[in-house]
Amino acid sequence: MYIGIDLGGTNIAGGLVNDKGEILFKHSIPTGRERGSDLVIEDIYNVIQVLIDRNNTDSEVMGIGIGIPGISDPHTGEVLVCVNLNWYNVPLREKLAEKTTLPIYIDNDATVAGVAEFQVAQAGKYNDAVILTLGTGVGGGVLIDGKVVSGHHGIGSELGHMLIGEGLYTCNCGRNGCLETFASSTAIIHYAKHLITQGSASSMFHAVGGDLDKITGEVIFDAAKKGDVVANQVVDRLVKYLSIGIMNIVCTIDPEIILLGGGISMAGDFLIQKVNTALDALKYFKASPVAKVEIAKFKNDAGIIGAAMYAMIHQ
Amino acid sequence: MYIGIDLGGTNIAGGLVNDKGEILFKHSIPTGRERGSDLVIEDIYNVIQVLIDRNNTDSEVMGIGIGIPGISDPHTGEVLVCVNLNWYNVPLREKLAEKTTLPIYIDNDATVAGVAEFQVAQAGKYNDAVILTLGTGVGGGVLIDGKVVSGHHGIGSELGHMLIGEGLYTCNCGRNGCLETFASSTAIIHYAKHLITQGSASSMFHAVGGDLDKITGEVIFDAAKKGDVVANQVVDRLVKYLSIGIMNIVCTIDPEIILLGGGISMAGDFLIQKVNTALDALKYFKASPVAKVEIAKFKNDAGIIGAAMYAMIHQ
Repeated sequence: MYIGIDLGGTNIAGGLVNDKGEILFKHSIPTGRERGSDLVIEDIYNVIQVLIDRNNTDSEVMGIGIGIPGISDPHTGEVLVCVNLNWYNVPLREKLAEKTTLPIYIDNDATVAGVAEFQVAQAGKYNDAVILTLGTGVGGGVLIDGKVVSGHHGIGSELGHMLIGEGLYTCNCGRNGCLETFASSTAIIHYAKHLITQGSASSMFHAVGGDLDKITGEVIFDAAKKGDVVANQVVDRLVKYLSIGIMNIVCTIDPEIILLGGGISMAGDFLIQKVNTALDALKYFKASPVAKVEIAKFKNDAGIIGAAMYAMIHQ
Repeated sequence: MYIGIDLGGTNIAGGLVNDKGEILFKHSIPTGRERGSDLVIEDIYNVIQVLIDRNNTDSEVMGIGIGIPGISDPHTGEVLVCVNLNWYNVPLREKLAEKTTLPIYIDNDATVAGVAEFQVAQAGKYNDAVILTLGTGVGGGVLIDGKVVSGHHGIGSELGHMLIGEGLYTCNCGRNGCLETFASSTAIIHYAKHLITQGSASSMFHAVGGDLDKITGEVIFDAAKKGDVVANQVVDRLVKYLSIGIMNIVCTIDPEIILLGGGISMAGDFLIQKVNTALDALKYFKASPVAKVEIAKFKNDAGIIGAAMYAMIHQ
């Protein structure tokens, strides 16, 4: 039995997860990030304690996995940076180790989501695989030869920060041109608003009652599926740059499969078909097959299951 | 004892290499690529035979490694595509296996050059490392967890085909924006000619006696080191895009070290200092260290030694 913690900007979501990756019990509390890291870590421990207490199976809790929305040092368990939590150099594992003797494993949330997809949903079928989580930002998880790649300095698999062109706005990281400024919900909402504000007539305007701040990824994809020209222009820009990002992953590590997760992946086949068409045109060796691109299976629970499985495979 | 073959567009260069990666004897003949693959393969075998005959040590030849300027299927030993040789789907291993019972291992030339650098020159010091060979084109070799990564379909580590911007000309692969159209000698020669033709005054013009077709990478770097403004503009463009390519490798697999090889790497510290300055400005997590960037140690023999060592470690 393992505990998986999905530390987010909004909630600390935890689960008691068995060796098969099934959640037996969930417990979630608000993060309250404005309180600072000490109090948040105390609450992470409280969630862990509730989950341990709820374990009424014969199987003991063997370890704790934590997915964080940022980067950590895999050796020390220190959170190096979480922009969304305003955490810099927070000794997360050290602080938790004052309260529990259970082993604690910490990694990026998209990385542990990848673990959930590849180890559990796909049952270890793929040894060389990548997950791209297309949400508010773009996260990445890389699996090579069956192992999660976090990199030598713990800053690998940050695929949302791949530089691929001239963007319309500056990324949170301070640079221009990151994949996440083209392929996140933030990016497509920004571009849809930009086009409508510039005078493009779109059904999206009516769908949100004229309040452009209500445009979401769902609104854009719904309109695109119904044939709205502007919405399709927005989706096609995402597809163009997402495909460039995918081909850059291919030319580097050439995985067997690339999974798309996160909110934008709810667009399903509509998205996959457009991406596959774009990828066909982008091959550098026309005759060679490239990675399959599919929608990830886990939705909201990927973080919890992935964190728990991450602890299991690292033990 | 192993045989390493560096199959190039100009020469078939072979060497008898001991287990320490030392070349005991070399033999090289012109490729004569216009003759077609069958005759070239016959000559590859002839080089192998000469090398086996010259082995006067007690140590038997245990295997053959071949570095090719293109991509191959690591499982079947088939050369899928070598644009420079005009080879498509050539069953290289199968054809050689008709003549020798020695095991034959085939991979991309930059990949095996990486093996030479990391296994021999660096003596296995690095487990997570990348080599970029900056020559006529840009090749790549990726080592993760001590293993060479060729990818699931054999098209990985083709780092020269990473898409990073709008290029001035179309890449050999048919696309626009590949790293090799910014960071190869072809790319900087093209850009230097472009600037001079457009009217920029440069000492490079005089260095080649007014014959722009005589501009080489060496001419450009020599002029840049002496302070020529146009030559520095050319080098700075290379550095800008090379650094973007390096940071995209970092955000994907975050290696410990990235080596620069190939003709352009002869620019040495002058290049490294400019690249390090550019990389500092390009960090996505400002506080975190990133891969060291250094000049590769092996020059022209990296292909032979690497191919032999590739055979050794795969046996």
